[in-house]
Amino acid sequence: MTAASTDNCRVRVVCIGETMVMFGPPPHELIEYCSHFVALLGGAEANVAIGLERLGMHAGWVGKLPQNALGRKLVNETRSFGVDTSAVVWSETGRVGTFFVEWGAAPRPLVTIYDRAGSAATTLAADELDWDYLLSAEWVVLTGITPALSDTCRATTLEIACRARQAGVRVAFDMNYRSLLWSRDEARKAYRALLPHVDLLVATEPDVEIVLGKHLERRDALRALADCCGAQVIAMTLGAEGALGYECGAFHQVPGYDVQCVNRLGAGDAFLAGLIYGFSQWNLRRGLAYGIAMAALKMTVPQNIPLINRVDVERLVAGRNSNVIR
Amino acid sequence: MTAASTDNCRVRVVCIGETMVMFGPPPHELIEYCSHFVALLGGAEANVAIGLERLGMHAGWVGKLPQNALGRKLVNETRSFGVDTSAVVWSETGRVGTFFVEWGAAPRPLVTIYDRAGSAATTLAADELDWDYLLSAEWVVLTGITPALSDTCRATTLEIACRARQAGVRVAFDMNYRSLLWSRDEARKAYRALLPHVDLLVATEPDVEIVLGKHLERRDALRALADCCGAQVIAMTLGAEGALGYECGAFHQVPGYDVQCVNRLGAGDAFLAGLIYGFSQWNLRRGLAYGIAMAALKMTVPQNIPLINRVDVERLVAGRNSNVIR
Amino acid sequence: MTAASTDNCRVRVVCIGETMVMFGPPPHELIEYCSHFVALLGGAEANVAIGLERLGMHAGWVGKLPQNALGRKLVNETRSFGVDTSAVVWSETGRVGTFFVEWGAAPRPLVTIYDRAGSAATTLAADELDWDYLLSAEWVVLTGITPALSDTCRATTLEIACRARQAGVRVAFDMNYRSLLWSRDEARKAYRALLPHVDLLVATEPDVEIVLGKHLERRDALRALADCCGAQVIAMTLGAEGALGYECGAFHQVPGYDVQCVNRLGAGDAFLAGLIYGFSQWNLRRGLAYGIAMAALKMTVPQNIPLINRVDVERLVAGRNSNVIR
Amino acid sequence: MTAASTDNCRVRVVCIGETMVMFGPPPHELIEYCSHFVALLGGAEANVAIGLERLGMHAGWVGKLPQNALGRKLVNETRSFGVDTSAVVWSETGRVGTFFVEWGAAPRPLVTIYDRAGSAATTLAADELDWDYLLSAEWVVLTGITPALSDTCRATTLEIACRARQAGVRVAFDMNYRSLLWSRDEARKAYRALLPHVDLLVATEPDVEIVLGKHLERRDALRALADCCGAQVIAMTLGAEGALGYECGAFHQVPGYDVQCVNRLGAGDAFLAGLIYGFSQWNLRRGLAYGIAMAALKMTVPQNIPLINRVDVERLVAGRNSNVIR
Amino acid sequence: MTAASTDNCRVRVVCIGETMVMFGPPPHELIEYCSHFVALLGGAEANVAIGLERLGMHAGWVGKLPQNALGRKLVNETRSFGVDTSAVVWSETGRVGTFFVEWGAAPRPLVTIYDRAGSAATTLAADELDWDYLLSAEWVVLTGITPALSDTCRATTLEIACRARQAGVRVAFDMNYRSLLWSRDEARKAYRALLPHVDLLVATEPDVEIVLGKHLERRDALRALADCCGAQVIAMTLGAEGALGYECGAFHQVPGYDVQCVNRLGAGDAFLAGLIYGFSQWNLRRGLAYGIAMAALKMTVPQNIPLINRVDVERLVAGRNSNVIR
Amino acid sequence: MTAASTDNCRVRVVCIGETMVMFGPPPHELIEYCSHFVALLGGAEANVAIGLERLGMHAGWVGKLPQNALGRKLVNETRSFGVDTSAVVWSETGRVGTFFVEWGAAPRPLVTIYDRAGSAATTLAADELDWDYLLSAEWVVLTGITPALSDTCRATTLEIACRARQAGVRVAFDMNYRSLLWSRDEARKAYRALLPHVDLLVATEPDVEIVLGKHLERRDALRALADCCGAQVIAMTLGAEGALGYECGAFHQVPGYDVQCVNRLGAGDAFLAGLIYGFSQWNLRRGLAYGIAMAALKMTVPQNIPLINRVDVERLVAGRNSNVIR
Repeated sequence: MTAASTDNCRVRVVCIGETMVMFGPPPHELIEYCSHFVALLGGAEANVAIGLERLGMHAGWVGKLPQNALGRKLVNETRSFGVDTSAVVWSETGRVGTFFVEWGAAPRPLVTIYDRAGSAATTLAADELDWDYLLSAEWVVLTGITPALSDTCRATTLEIACRARQAGVRVAFDMNYRSLLWSRDEARKAYRALLPHVDLLVATEPDVEIVLGKHLERRDALRALADCCGAQVIAMTLGAEGALGYECGAFHQVPGYDVQCVNRLGAGDAFLAGLIYGFSQWNLRRGLAYGIAMAALKMTVPQNIPLINRVDVERLVAGRNSNVIR
Repeated sequence: MTAASTDNCRVRVVCIGETMVMFGPPPHELIEYCSHFVALLGGAEANVAIGLERLGMHAGWVGKLPQNALGRKLVNETRSFGVDTSAVVWSETGRVGTFFVEWGAAPRPLVTIYDRAGSAATTLAADELDWDYLLSAEWVVLTGITPALSDTCRATTLEIACRARQAGVRVAFDMNYRSLLWSRDEARKAYRALLPHVDLLVATEPDVEIVLGKHLERRDALRALADCCGAQVIAMTLGAEGALGYECGAFHQVPGYDVQCVNRLGAGDAFLAGLIYGFSQWNLRRGLAYGIAMAALKMTVPQNIPLINRVDVERLVAGRNSNVIR
Repeated sequence: MTAASTDNCRVRVVCIGETMVMFGPPPHELIEYCSHFVALLGGAEANVAIGLERLGMHAGWVGKLPQNALGRKLVNETRSFGVDTSAVVWSETGRVGTFFVEWGAAPRPLVTIYDRAGSAATTLAADELDWDYLLSAEWVVLTGITPALSDTCRATTLEIACRARQAGVRVAFDMNYRSLLWSRDEARKAYRALLPHVDLLVATEPDVEIVLGKHLERRDALRALADCCGAQVIAMTLGAEGALGYECGAFHQVPGYDVQCVNRLGAGDAFLAGLIYGFSQWNLRRGLAYGIAMAALKMTVPQNIPLINRVDVERLVAGRNSNVIR
Repeated sequence: MTAASTDNCRVRVVCIGETMVMFGPPPHELIEYCSHFVALLGGAEANVAIGLERLGMHAGWVGKLPQNALGRKLVNETRSFGVDTSAVVWSETGRVGTFFVEWGAAPRPLVTIYDRAGSAATTLAADELDWDYLLSAEWVVLTGITPALSDTCRATTLEIACRARQAGVRVAFDMNYRSLLWSRDEARKAYRALLPHVDLLVATEPDVEIVLGKHLERRDALRALADCCGAQVIAMTLGAEGALGYECGAFHQVPGYDVQCVNRLGAGDAFLAGLIYGFSQWNLRRGLAYGIAMAALKMTVPQNIPLINRVDVERLVAGRNSNVIR
Repeated sequence: MTAASTDNCRVRVVCIGETMVMFGPPPHELIEYCSHFVALLGGAEANVAIGLERLGMHAGWVGKLPQNALGRKLVNETRSFGVDTSAVVWSETGRVGTFFVEWGAAPRPLVTIYDRAGSAATTLAADELDWDYLLSAEWVVLTGITPALSDTCRATTLEIACRARQAGVRVAFDMNYRSLLWSRDEARKAYRALLPHVDLLVATEPDVEIVLGKHLERRDALRALADCCGAQVIAMTLGAEGALGYECGAFHQVPGYDVQCVNRLGAGDAFLAGLIYGFSQWNLRRGLAYGIAMAALKMTVPQNIPLINRVDVERLVAGRNSNVIR
Repeated sequence: MTAASTDNCRVRVVCIGETMVMFGPPPHELIEYCSHFVALLGGAEANVAIGLERLGMHAGWVGKLPQNALGRKLVNETRSFGVDTSAVVWSETGRVGTFFVEWGAAPRPLVTIYDRAGSAATTLAADELDWDYLLSAEWVVLTGITPALSDTCRATTLEIACRARQAGVRVAFDMNYRSLLWSRDEARKAYRALLPHVDLLVATEPDVEIVLGKHLERRDALRALADCCGAQVIAMTLGAEGALGYECGAFHQVPGYDVQCVNRLGAGDAFLAGLIYGFSQWNLRRGLAYGIAMAALKMTVPQNIPLINRVDVERLVAGRNSNVIR
């Protein structure tokens, strides 16, 4: 019933990708002038797994990490949430990828400084994976970050999507375009190869534009995406406006919440966790509702991971509002 | 003249109730994932006493605490503000009540988690009190939290109100309904027993609704309250809208301030301190003005206690505004 | 091979007892004057389970916790180390026990202030346990703290020891006398009931004195203990002197290390983890060696839990010394 | 090309004034109840020098400091930004001026508490200065704070302005009226003596009112100022509205940015740095644009010094907007 | 019985002197490179008053402070311990004295950097004092720091000693020579004027040498001091060796404790508090015993003030030893 | 005269090598369980330059860094001490090397975890250096860390030593063997190539053993080293025993100090700074004395850089001792 009680359930969702150590200065400080950093787990797919556990749906995370203190630290943090980490690929070589965040404050942007070259994760090959583990889940979760890391990772991502589809495991994919990792052309090519294998697609408007190679009005863009790539269920996240769902020609719009934003990083991953949960249990509309609630609550915590209380999610989805409970 | 100079004045107001240790995580953190807590004094009646000292009106706090490091810690913090603690009841048994706060951020609510069962304060009996001390003050301050703690406390509260009234000591009472401590029915019964002994009543709109058992428009509600309970002076706090005062059939409305809210807990207690101060020195209108100013300034500090500078209160009451002084 | 890799192995050791939230002030501060506390997991049996995971031996922890943020926090911290928590007993009522530590500095003692009355753990009954889980392990670990908590806990402890023994599960027991919880007479009675069911006993010299009711020289005391209680394998911890083992009439002495002590709490639990590991894999002598190394390394970290690096344990047991590695 | 590369360039701007240690409590705390302070460099002219270095224009700072740990601390912090400090005047006597800031939150004002009496800086005499150093720069920067410190400082300020003007070094002057340091009449007298020697004047609307002795509409005020004092280039800062420039009868208006304000102190100094940079390289309009961008970015950092990234300034000046870069 | 219960007792000891704000960097940091400071109360006489309250003997502190946030902060901290501050002299002018401490680590010394010139305390005149308050106590406590501050303070100190003696109030005096405040010759002159009015004298060996103008063996020095100055009861503190008492020709030696020293500042003041307590209640020997225990425990806390637990003092004086209580 | 006054002096010593960001957990924490890190400058050669500035001898640091926030951060910290950084080589590619430190506590070793592969520093080629800058100094400082980084670095190091020697610039070299970077055989080969060009050599006993390929008694080892490599002035550091100097066949022994060690990293670099200073100004004996004093004081601060107060160095060298100055 609770996150705590999922320990010995079957892993229903396997999320595959890189986790890194994120070094964050205190809220408004510049990296150049900061000497105290908080080191936290950063990784889109692990975020999704943690979000699912917080909702009571058992998830596993798979990635490749070196056998050192930083690698173990990331696994410890992941499994503290109940996420299964038994299929992690341990490496004798390579480093743990890191990145630094400067949180910003308008008109100063939030800036990410990557130091992830040479990470063990960039060498994750398909034959290193525990395929029994992956293919016995209900869902695999992939994001557009992994194919951007290396040729190996691009091939691995594609193979996971193909084999999962064939095995009847549903594939969720979040485009998650990162301009600091690859060009729009490289991304388009990879997206177009992957999308035919995707059951549940998450994208922002700019992400869709990359795939289509042109700007279209939202609903037209979703229809075009469905046509060209075979994606039948798509959730387009719209920031403060909420989300727009597309399923077999029909649209579902869910509005966003007024949010006092503490940290926007990871909101999309929280959305995906909520989406998979609601979609699996009920339907797309409810998936969007859980996704939007998860994203809103995620933005109220300082971490990137979706440290949400399930009771708060349920309260929002049920439409009840509260600002003090005592 | 100053808070510092009240040491050897006569105690004019005695505030009676429980103080607890409040454990608060850093601003946006969840208790479940937090390992650093700030431990501060939490207690409505002690807040009122501190607020009065900050305004230069000498006050005492009375409560029951066990003779251990946590009990002494609470007394030390209280008397650091000049509050007299010479009539505290020390107990050989029982614990110090504690509670945890999760500060929240919209749409996540502020949540209070009580761990106060078994506290020494729940056993405070009337015959443990120093009645000479209580009955030689000008005011006693009680709140609706105390009768919610235990049957003993409910009886003690009622006896204080009765005996104070009889002795010519004015009774101020803040309804302060806490849904996590008792039901609305229990509260109504206790409120109805207490109100006939109250000289100055503070209530929110929902509090009034509990007593009346139905919703009425504000002014009608205040008139009904006066009719049914004999309360002749009532201050209804209206959040951002300010406060509405009722006295012998007349109404006084005081608008609120634009506030950059840092911590809303304790704002009502700060209001009561300002109200008693202004009402004692001048009249209800001025009491409301001081109350609203105190509440606004309280919300700008991270603590629950009204750590306000008197000069800031006077500036607001005088209608002067300032955002930088250098 | 590593802590990280034990996730999906069988649980070989089940440790049963209470975990609490320990509030610790900064190193030399007094609780009475401190407002910042670190909140960490405190619990002898969970410490043992964590220590075993750090050595690569898969362990589970079983205890009773209320379903609230603090209860979940304790489980999260426990499972971050890979400890299995799937058999935790969740309660709708009761609180999480807490305690405060004042670290001290000679001639000021380290002081523990318990606030654990009314905890859910004190109500752990035998019929709430998952007996299949317990009885399929190789070892169960119990300590003398649990029978000191309540009559219910005393009965539960005894039943676990009996049924485990009967089922061929080995019973490890650490006497762990706590003067703030019960009297020496109460303890003696409980110890004497338990000891006949114990396979591996850990005790300090004063612990043994409680059971025997008199002071004897170390080796005589161990022999007397074996005679009167049937304990055939005993490890007596001797502080800085190391440990003395007794097995079927033979003695094994292992010297201690020079330690720069950061926090002595939990050293005994770390010892027990090392002892079980070495004794299971090899023999008592090697168990003592691992135990002493674990205890020494535990004392070098600020937490009570044995946050040790396995490579450091192996280096010490192998007799290699190093003070800088770069 | 970068801040880092200016080390061995010629000092183009010399900024003269006092730097102090600013003690700041955590964001919303009151000094009276705070026991942890951050000690940072505070000083308008040093802020300008640092801002210029951040823009790649080499600057020096000149002031008088005692030869003790606090004096050296201020120099170390200044030169960490690449500012040249070789002409600092070291004193055997006097203290380092300090001040405390209470950050405030509406309706509580930001309050500055000065403890700067008796500082070495108040004794800075003209004959202690390295005139070759000063007169070989392109610009000297002075502010209205220095003449407010002492008669000596007033005379020194005037002498610097006169001799710089004569030597062909341009004089920038920021009025910077401080009501806690001197009266409006004293200030007017000093301003009127100085202004004829000023090439580039920065003032707020209230500052101008002090000089003119009356309130005029903005553009009329600037014209009147130019007439009475000979200042031909004036930049009037307008808070959130941006800035208004005046040059030889013509006006240039530059709008402000939407800013999430973290700390407003030092925004004016950042503006002046941007103004000098843009004005020197191009013209007044561009100077205002750089000034407004610098001020906006300064307000997003917790320090008073303009810890801005040059790339962010250039992005704003170029009119590009961004809220996340990853 | 407890510190908390002394509130409404009569003030038995009045301690007169300056309190300052002490800025301390983290343990081993240099002020020149530190930007985070803890601001704590620093003042020998206030330390003594606090120490007496901790032992249950009601004390007052008298000094002169400006009416600002820092002045009030010092009073708040003082009265949090129960010390009476009703006779503090508030000033409209002057500053709060401050000092910085660099804690050191062998072979680097602990260094004090004073910034106390111009403090309000240096202007404390005899006619500003509440003589009724002073002369109704049993003891007044003075130290050799006050006469070192200014001519005014030297005269005030002498007048207090004279009038107290005449009024039958006993005078305790701690020589406390500070080389950074005055020369040995100045100090000798002042000491020689004061000593004839002193009932209980505390001195280190170097202090005594200053008065005598030459080095003598300890016991000879004490006899010479008694002869020349009329001091009949003298306690000479000997650091780790303990203390040597002299009374009417007889000597009492009390050994020191093995101490894990956290902060040595204030140990002498803690000694004086213990000495007065034990000497008042019993005799010199017991006074020395309490003094030595207080000093040892003081050294185990990070603050200068004697934040000791009375139960620890009593345990040491009773000769019981303990290093863990749980 | 002071560190602050060296700004515009000629650079007398140029130190060449890599600086990295060192991430350090709080004192006794494990990296695997730590989420707060202090990020400080780490680099042997920069340490030497900073140490020289602290002694008043102007120094420059040369290394290769990428043009990003971390690279600039390292330069800012270096120049805050007055070190000249005008000849730093800025790179468009590569990363800033980092390493993590686990401080340890006996019997747990201090452990360094390098993440420095791919750093810009490993590509520093001879033709990127400003040779005029290097060859106009009195000394160049090199260490055995640089040739261990890459083939390029090995060649660059050798070329610097050769050309400096030829140009009459003295070469100081600290062997500084790092077992985590290269093998003993690789090191021996590099050392043997470099040593003929070295004027002042610093080595530990194990370092010398690597060069000689065998163990000899100290004095014999130094003589053998001089014979085989041409090094005429050698300082052998002996840890707590001090240092042993060799010059033209003569030996000078300087004892160590009793040190309360806070952080041992960087002690050797501090020694080298003191050695160069004393040797340049006076002779080898005095160089050793300054070196030992610098190393002892360095160990009393938490940073790796020699944050020493010059007055403390002079006091130790002069043989005066002090543990409190107030």
